[in-house]
Amino acid sequence: MEYNVGEQVQLYLLVKSQTKGIASNGKAFLTLILQDKSGDIEAKFWDASSEDEQTYQPQTIVQVAGEIHEYRGRLQLKLKQIRPTNEQDGVEVGDLLERAPLAVKEMQDIVTQYIFDMKSPAIQRITRHLVKKVEKDFFLYPAATKNHHEFVSGLAYHVVSMLKLAKSIADLYPSLDRDLLYAGVILHDLGKVQELSGPVATSYTVEGNLLGHINIMVEQISQAAIELSIEGEEVMILKHLVLSHHGKAEWGSPKPPMVKEAEILHYIDNIDAKMNMLDRALERVKPGEFSERVFALDNRNFYKPTFHN
Amino acid sequence: MEYNVGEQVQLYLLVKSQTKGIASNGKAFLTLILQDKSGDIEAKFWDASSEDEQTYQPQTIVQVAGEIHEYRGRLQLKLKQIRPTNEQDGVEVGDLLERAPLAVKEMQDIVTQYIFDMKSPAIQRITRHLVKKVEKDFFLYPAATKNHHEFVSGLAYHVVSMLKLAKSIADLYPSLDRDLLYAGVILHDLGKVQELSGPVATSYTVEGNLLGHINIMVEQISQAAIELSIEGEEVMILKHLVLSHHGKAEWGSPKPPMVKEAEILHYIDNIDAKMNMLDRALERVKPGEFSERVFALDNRNFYKPTFHN
Amino acid sequence: MEYNVGEQVQLYLLVKSQTKGIASNGKAFLTLILQDKSGDIEAKFWDASSEDEQTYQPQTIVQVAGEIHEYRGRLQLKLKQIRPTNEQDGVEVGDLLERAPLAVKEMQDIVTQYIFDMKSPAIQRITRHLVKKVEKDFFLYPAATKNHHEFVSGLAYHVVSMLKLAKSIADLYPSLDRDLLYAGVILHDLGKVQELSGPVATSYTVEGNLLGHINIMVEQISQAAIELSIEGEEVMILKHLVLSHHGKAEWGSPKPPMVKEAEILHYIDNIDAKMNMLDRALERVKPGEFSERVFALDNRNFYKPTFHN
Amino acid sequence: MEYNVGEQVQLYLLVKSQTKGIASNGKAFLTLILQDKSGDIEAKFWDASSEDEQTYQPQTIVQVAGEIHEYRGRLQLKLKQIRPTNEQDGVEVGDLLERAPLAVKEMQDIVTQYIFDMKSPAIQRITRHLVKKVEKDFFLYPAATKNHHEFVSGLAYHVVSMLKLAKSIADLYPSLDRDLLYAGVILHDLGKVQELSGPVATSYTVEGNLLGHINIMVEQISQAAIELSIEGEEVMILKHLVLSHHGKAEWGSPKPPMVKEAEILHYIDNIDAKMNMLDRALERVKPGEFSERVFALDNRNFYKPTFHN
Amino acid sequence: MEYNVGEQVQLYLLVKSQTKGIASNGKAFLTLILQDKSGDIEAKFWDASSEDEQTYQPQTIVQVAGEIHEYRGRLQLKLKQIRPTNEQDGVEVGDLLERAPLAVKEMQDIVTQYIFDMKSPAIQRITRHLVKKVEKDFFLYPAATKNHHEFVSGLAYHVVSMLKLAKSIADLYPSLDRDLLYAGVILHDLGKVQELSGPVATSYTVEGNLLGHINIMVEQISQAAIELSIEGEEVMILKHLVLSHHGKAEWGSPKPPMVKEAEILHYIDNIDAKMNMLDRALERVKPGEFSERVFALDNRNFYKPTFHN
Amino acid sequence: MEYNVGEQVQLYLLVKSQTKGIASNGKAFLTLILQDKSGDIEAKFWDASSEDEQTYQPQTIVQVAGEIHEYRGRLQLKLKQIRPTNEQDGVEVGDLLERAPLAVKEMQDIVTQYIFDMKSPAIQRITRHLVKKVEKDFFLYPAATKNHHEFVSGLAYHVVSMLKLAKSIADLYPSLDRDLLYAGVILHDLGKVQELSGPVATSYTVEGNLLGHINIMVEQISQAAIELSIEGEEVMILKHLVLSHHGKAEWGSPKPPMVKEAEILHYIDNIDAKMNMLDRALERVKPGEFSERVFALDNRNFYKPTFHN
Repeated sequence: MEYNVGEQVQLYLLVKSQTKGIASNGKAFLTLILQDKSGDIEAKFWDASSEDEQTYQPQTIVQVAGEIHEYRGRLQLKLKQIRPTNEQDGVEVGDLLERAPLAVKEMQDIVTQYIFDMKSPAIQRITRHLVKKVEKDFFLYPAATKNHHEFVSGLAYHVVSMLKLAKSIADLYPSLDRDLLYAGVILHDLGKVQELSGPVATSYTVEGNLLGHINIMVEQISQAAIELSIEGEEVMILKHLVLSHHGKAEWGSPKPPMVKEAEILHYIDNIDAKMNMLDRALERVKPGEFSERVFALDNRNFYKPTFHN
Repeated sequence: MEYNVGEQVQLYLLVKSQTKGIASNGKAFLTLILQDKSGDIEAKFWDASSEDEQTYQPQTIVQVAGEIHEYRGRLQLKLKQIRPTNEQDGVEVGDLLERAPLAVKEMQDIVTQYIFDMKSPAIQRITRHLVKKVEKDFFLYPAATKNHHEFVSGLAYHVVSMLKLAKSIADLYPSLDRDLLYAGVILHDLGKVQELSGPVATSYTVEGNLLGHINIMVEQISQAAIELSIEGEEVMILKHLVLSHHGKAEWGSPKPPMVKEAEILHYIDNIDAKMNMLDRALERVKPGEFSERVFALDNRNFYKPTFHN
Repeated sequence: MEYNVGEQVQLYLLVKSQTKGIASNGKAFLTLILQDKSGDIEAKFWDASSEDEQTYQPQTIVQVAGEIHEYRGRLQLKLKQIRPTNEQDGVEVGDLLERAPLAVKEMQDIVTQYIFDMKSPAIQRITRHLVKKVEKDFFLYPAATKNHHEFVSGLAYHVVSMLKLAKSIADLYPSLDRDLLYAGVILHDLGKVQELSGPVATSYTVEGNLLGHINIMVEQISQAAIELSIEGEEVMILKHLVLSHHGKAEWGSPKPPMVKEAEILHYIDNIDAKMNMLDRALERVKPGEFSERVFALDNRNFYKPTFHN
Repeated sequence: MEYNVGEQVQLYLLVKSQTKGIASNGKAFLTLILQDKSGDIEAKFWDASSEDEQTYQPQTIVQVAGEIHEYRGRLQLKLKQIRPTNEQDGVEVGDLLERAPLAVKEMQDIVTQYIFDMKSPAIQRITRHLVKKVEKDFFLYPAATKNHHEFVSGLAYHVVSMLKLAKSIADLYPSLDRDLLYAGVILHDLGKVQELSGPVATSYTVEGNLLGHINIMVEQISQAAIELSIEGEEVMILKHLVLSHHGKAEWGSPKPPMVKEAEILHYIDNIDAKMNMLDRALERVKPGEFSERVFALDNRNFYKPTFHN
Repeated sequence: MEYNVGEQVQLYLLVKSQTKGIASNGKAFLTLILQDKSGDIEAKFWDASSEDEQTYQPQTIVQVAGEIHEYRGRLQLKLKQIRPTNEQDGVEVGDLLERAPLAVKEMQDIVTQYIFDMKSPAIQRITRHLVKKVEKDFFLYPAATKNHHEFVSGLAYHVVSMLKLAKSIADLYPSLDRDLLYAGVILHDLGKVQELSGPVATSYTVEGNLLGHINIMVEQISQAAIELSIEGEEVMILKHLVLSHHGKAEWGSPKPPMVKEAEILHYIDNIDAKMNMLDRALERVKPGEFSERVFALDNRNFYKPTFHN
Repeated sequence: MEYNVGEQVQLYLLVKSQTKGIASNGKAFLTLILQDKSGDIEAKFWDASSEDEQTYQPQTIVQVAGEIHEYRGRLQLKLKQIRPTNEQDGVEVGDLLERAPLAVKEMQDIVTQYIFDMKSPAIQRITRHLVKKVEKDFFLYPAATKNHHEFVSGLAYHVVSMLKLAKSIADLYPSLDRDLLYAGVILHDLGKVQELSGPVATSYTVEGNLLGHINIMVEQISQAAIELSIEGEEVMILKHLVLSHHGKAEWGSPKPPMVKEAEILHYIDNIDAKMNMLDRALERVKPGEFSERVFALDNRNFYKPTFHN
C-alpha cells in the first residue's frame, strides 16, 4: 500500500488475520492485518471486547477511517473508525483481492448452460445437485493456494476455461462422451471448497490435509446419488473421473484413468493450469528475456521471443 | 485330480466356471470346470435347459456321480448325476478349496471381542455396523487374488493376525490409541468384498478396477456415520486410516499416513502380509536351499539355513 | 487372406518382402511375401533374372494371376503371371494397406491453408519449403512403427488433427502465437520421413536409429534458412519447438520446452496421439468390457461404460 | 541455560568442545563450551598449560565455579575454579545430557536375559562376546546423530525396545527363529560404537564415513567366530542379518534380506525407530494441531486428533 | 558338438554336471553332461559304484572312448571307456572351455610386477598376501557368471587389463596414488573366488548370495592385516576401495567412493568390463549391421559402421 | 584485490561488467567492475560518451591508472586514466584470469598433431574445418560455467587431456577406431563456443539455453560436410558421437551411444571432468580431512588419507 505518513484515509479493506494481545493496561487489543489489491497494512484495535473479536474475524470486509503512521520502518494504520460492511456498501471480496477476469454472474451462466446441455439425466442431475450445494463457495474460492488460479473465483474460472476447451476437443474427436467430459470438468476440483479454507489467506483445512479434495468429492457424488435415488453405472464412472483426474498414483490419483474421458479430462486440466502459469510467468517479462523459474513447471524458466510483445 | 480312466466316482465339487455351447444336435450344453482341493476336471452337461444354466453357476457346490474318461490327453468326467447341494450335505466352500487355518466361528469370536474392547462408542459402533453389513463375505473372501492370503477366509484370517499383532505393539508403545488401531485393522481391507469377485476363481470386479477397495471403504465409513447419526472427528480419522494404509501415493494411497496410528497400521499390514508370503515360499524348501523368487518381495529368493527345519 | 485351395485369383498386391534363393537346378528364385488389407501370402518366383530381382523390390505394387495352393499347412500363391503396375492401373499403396480416413488431397489442402494463414513471412517460408521438399513422403508415411497412427498417411493425418486442435486452443488462449503453433505442428515429426523406412513393413533406418527424427528436422530447418537466406530469431525458435516437443530429456528431448508455444505443442501432440490409441483400443470392445492393455498408455486397460456404444 | 548476569554458580557440566587460542599476552587459552540438560555456555580458560588442554577434552565432566557475565549479547561463564570430576562426585554423562528413560543397569539385565534365553550355543556365544567387547560404549552411545534415539544410551534403549517387539512377533509367528531374531536385534547397530564419535556432540568418525557401521560389525562377527573357534552356517547367517538390515541396496544394505528373520529384523528396526520419531514429534503438539515436518518420515507432518491428549 | 551317428570317438572332456538315477535293474547309473569348447553331450554311466560317483564330479577332466548314438533327436555318447585324467595327459580346464587370450603364466608375471612396483610396504604386503592365499583360483576363475569376462581365467584377465589401464591413467594424472590404484584393481573382485562356484557351469555359492564378493574381500583385508601385524590407515583405505568400487548404493556399494582413487577405480572397472562386452557383441556383426541388444549396456544394440571391419 | 587506501596504482585489468547510470549533473557515467587474478574492484567512469560505452564493453582488457579509495566499506578505484590495450601491450585474457596450465600455443600444437594423425580423409577434413572456424574461441573459452574446467582455455585443456587419455585407451584396446575417438574428443564440446558467452563472467547465451551445445555442433558437422562436399557414413557417425556423448537421455543426449567409440568417448569425458573436480576439491584440504561437498559428484565429500600430501 502506498500512502504517505500523516495521510488521512477512509477505505474498504479485508481482514486477513487477527491476533489477540494484552496491553500494558491489562486490556485486550487486536492486531489486524488489513488488505486490498494494493497490499496490506497493520492496524491495532485497542480495548477490544470479545464481541469485537468475533466481529473482526479473517475474511470480514470492513470500512475503516484513520491516519497513516510509521512504526519501526513499516506503515501502520491508526484506526479512528472501523465497522463491518453490509449489503448497502456493495463491496465484495473480489473487489479487494485479485480476482478472475470474468464476473461471477457470467461464469454461473456458462456453467448452467453446460449442465443444461447434458443429455444423460443421471449425469445432469448429479452435477446440478452438487454445484447447487456449494454454489456460493464454488464461485468464490481460488483453485489452489499457489501455482495456478490462486485468486478469488479462480476455481470457477478454471472450470469455465476447461469447459470451453472440453467442448473444442469433443468437437474434434466425436467419440468422446460430452456429458462425462463436462461433468468431469465441473466436479473434478469441487472438493476444494472443503479442502481449502476460503478465498482469503488460503490454507488447507484439516479435512483437506487428511482426506484431500479428490476423496471428498468422490464421497459427495455417492451421497448425491443416494439423495436423488439415482442408480446405474453413471455414478461409478463419475466417481472414477474425479478419482483419476491427477493421472497417476504418484500425483495423488489412487487409480489412473481407465475410461477414455478420464484420460482426456486429465489433459484438459493440465493445459488450462499450465496456460495460466505460463501467462502469469511471462506477463512481467520483456521480449528477449527469460521469466523467473516456475516451480510447478519443473522449475523451468521461459523465454519470450524478441518478435513477441 | 488323480483318478484312473474308467474309475467310477461320486464327489462333492465346486463349479469353477461354466461355458455354454451348442451341440451338433442343436441343443445347448454346458462345459463345467469342477474343482476341489486336489485340482479341477472338465465335465460336459448335455441337453442343458436354461434352468440348468441358472442352477450351475460358478461358486455353486454340487454333488456329482460319473466315470473318468480321457479326451485329448486330459481327464474328463462323464456325468451320470449332478445336483446342487443343500444344507443337509454339510459341505462348504472351505471344504473344497484351500482355506484359512482357523475356523470361521473362531475368527468371528476374535473380531467380536476386539470390537467389544473398544472404548470410543463412535469408533466401536461404526466398526460393528460395517462388519455386520458384509459379515458373510468378510469371513469367506480371500485377501487378494494372489501374493498373500489368497485362500478362502484369507481376508478374515489376515485381519485376525493383524489384530493380535496390533495388540502386542500397543502393549509395548502405550502412546498408541488402541481403538483406532483395532478399527483400522478391521476396516482397512473390508472394501475387498466389493473389489473382488468372491472366493472362487477370484478376479477384480469393474467397481474394484475403477474405484478400488480403499475408496469403496472410505465411502462406506461416511455412509455408516450418516446411518448411525455419528458426528465428530473420529469419522474423519477412520477414513484417513483406510485411505493411507498403503503408505505412499505410488502404492495406491492418495494421502500418506498423517496420524500416528495410520503409520503403524501400515507396518502391521506389511508384516502380516510378508510373513504369510515368506512362510508359503519356504514351506516347500529344504534346509540349505533357496526358495523360488517371490514377486511381491522384490523378486527375491529366500534361503532356509541348514540348521532350520 | 481367405481363399480356398485350388481357387484361381487375379489381384493387385504389394510386395512386403523379397528373399533370394538358389533352386536345385542352380537357378535363382525369389520368395515374395505379397499383401493387401486382408493379410499376406507367399509366392515363389522361379527362374528370376537379376532384372526381376530389381523390379520386385519391397513396396512395389504388382498385379498377379495364379492359383491358391497349400504348403505345410499354409496357403501359397502359385504364380502364373506377375507385373508391376503403372499409372493406368490406378492402384495406390493406400488401397492395399490400412490408411488414414482422409484422402491425401484433402489433407494437402488443409496443410496448405494453415501455411497460407501464417502472418510471419520467415515462419511461413521455412515451413512451406520443408513441406515441399518431402511432400510425397509426408503424405504417405505412417507416424510411427507402432503405438499410434501406424498406417499409410498416418503422419499427415496426425498433423492435420493436431492443426485443428491447435487452432481451437489458440482461439481459447489468445496469448498464443498461431504461427509458431502451426509451424511447430507441421514440422515436429517431419523428420520421420528419414527416420522411418517407408509406409510398408515400416522399420527404423540407420540414420533414424543413430540420430533420430528430432535432430534430423532441426538440421533441416537450419539448412532451409540458409537456402532461403532467412535470418532472425524465428529460425532458432522453430528449431527449439522441434527439439523440445517430447517434453522432457528422458522422453528424448535434449531441451525441455522453454517457450510457451513449445509447451503447448507438446500437449497437443500428446492428446492427438493418445486419442488415436484410445479409439483403436476401444473399437473392438463391447460396452461393459475392458480393452487389452495398451503399452504406450502405461500398460493400462480401458473400460467401455455400459451406457456407451 | 537461564541465569542472571552477575549470578554466582557452582555446577557440574560436560565439556562439549574445546578450542585453543593465543591471547594478546602470548599465552594459550581455551574456549570451552560447557553443557548440561538446560543448554550450553561459553567459558574462557586463560593461561592454559598443555596439560590443561589434555585434561579438558570434549566429553570430560567437570565441576566449575564462576560468575555469569554477558558478552556481545550472550551469557558467558567467568571461571573461578574448574576441575575434572572423579567417581566420588557420582555424576555421569547421562545426568548432564538427555538420556534414555531406562537406567543402564536395567537395560543390561534385559539384554543379558535375552542372550541367556538363546538355545544355539554358537549364536549365544558370539553375541555375548561382541557385547562384552564394547559393553561400556554400547550402553552409553546414542543410536544416531539425529532422527531417532539421538540421546545418551539411545542405542541400548533402541535395542531393548526392539527385543521386546521381536519377542511379541515371535510369539505370534512361531516359524521364526528366536535366536536369530534376538541376536540380529542386539548386533544390528553395534558397529555404531565405532561409526560414531561418542554420546557428546556426536559426529561420524573417519572409519564411520568410509566403512559404515554395517561393514564394521560384519567384520567383528567374523573376528569373534575366529576368536571363539566357532564354525558353521550360523556365523554367515548372523553376518547376513547385519548386512541386510537396512532392507535395500539404496538404503545402504549391499544385500537385501534373503533369510526370513532378516526381513522381519528390518521391520522391527523400522517400527521402533519410527515410533520414537512419532512420539517426539507429537509430544509438543496440542490436540487439533499438526506437528512440524519430520524429515526422516518423508517430510510429513502428523496430526494429533482432537480426542487425543 | 558335431559328430555323425555311429562315429567312434576318443576325447578329453570336462564333466559339466552329474545326476544319479536308479535303472530298472535296481542299480545306480550316472547321467553325465560332458563338454569341450565345441559344446556338450550326454553320456550314461551304467552300474555306477559310489566310488564312481565321487570320481566323476563336475569340473573333473576325463578321457572317454565311445560311439555316437541318437536318442530322442539328440546325440548321446555311448561310453566304452572313461577315466579321470592325470598330469601326464597335460590337459587343463582352459583347453576344454573358452579361456582368456593370455596364458596364466603371463598374467601371473604381470600381476607380480605390479605388486613389486608398489612403494608402500603396507599396501604391497597385504596385496601379495591376499593374492597368494587364493592364487590358483584367482588365475582360473571367470569374472562373472555372465555379462563380461565369463570365461576361464576371466577374472585375472580383467585384472591385468585394468592394471594396464590404471597405469596409463596414473601417467596422465600424476596426483593419483599408484599403490592404491594397483592394489584396488587387484583386490576389487578377488572375493569372487568365494562368491562363485568355479570356472565350470559357474553359479553363485550360498555365501556369495548372502554376503557378496565385496563384503567377503573387505573382511579378508582386515584378516590379512591382523595376520601380518599391519596397522595404519592404509588398511582402512584398501577396504574402502573394495567396498565402494560399484560406485553407488543401488549398484551394491554400501558406501560411495570417498577417496579419489576409489572414484577412478570405479571408472577403470567400468571401461574394461564395457570394452569386453562391446567387443563380444560386435565380433559377430558385419559392417552396416546392428548387434543384438546387450542387457548390461542398458539393453542397447550397437552399430558397426560400414567403414569398419 | 589487496591494496591500501590512498595507494597509486597502474594496472592491466579486464572489464567484467559495465552498467550505465545518469549522474546528478545529467551526464552519463559507467560503473565498471574490473578484475585480474587477485579479484575485482569497482571504478566510476564519469562523463562517459556513447563511444566510451562501446569501447569499455565486458571482456575488454584495459590499462588503468588511479588511486585506491574506500566507499561504504569496500575499495574503489578512482580512475585517472583508462585506455583499451593493443597488441603492443602483450596482455591476454589468460594473464588476468585463472587459466589452463598449458599455453595456448602448446595446446594448438597438440590438437593439430592429433588431427594430422587421422587416417580417414573425411574425418580429418571435417574436424580440421570445424576447429579452424572457431579456433580463437576454442582456445580461449572455458569448458563450463562451473563444476569443471571453468577457467580461461578450459575447453581446449579439457580436450587436450582427453586426447591423451583417448590415445592411451586406444593403445590398450586395439579394436577402437582412433580417428573416431580423436574427432569425437575434439568436436564433442566445440558447440560451447556458441552455448557460452565467453571466458569472462561466463553465462549461457539464448541459443545455448534453447538449443544447447550438442545440437549446435551436430548442425555444424552437417554444414561442414556440405561445404567440403563430403558424403558417406563418417558424417553421420561423427554427428552420433557428439549427439550421444552425455551417455543417457536424462543427461541430455537424445540418443544413447550406439557405436563403440561413442560409448568410450562418454567415459573419457567423464574421467577427465571428474579428475579435474577431484583435484580442485582436494587441493585445499590437508591429509586426514574431508573436502567440502562436490555438487557434481553426487554431493559427496572426499577424504585425503593421512599418508598423502
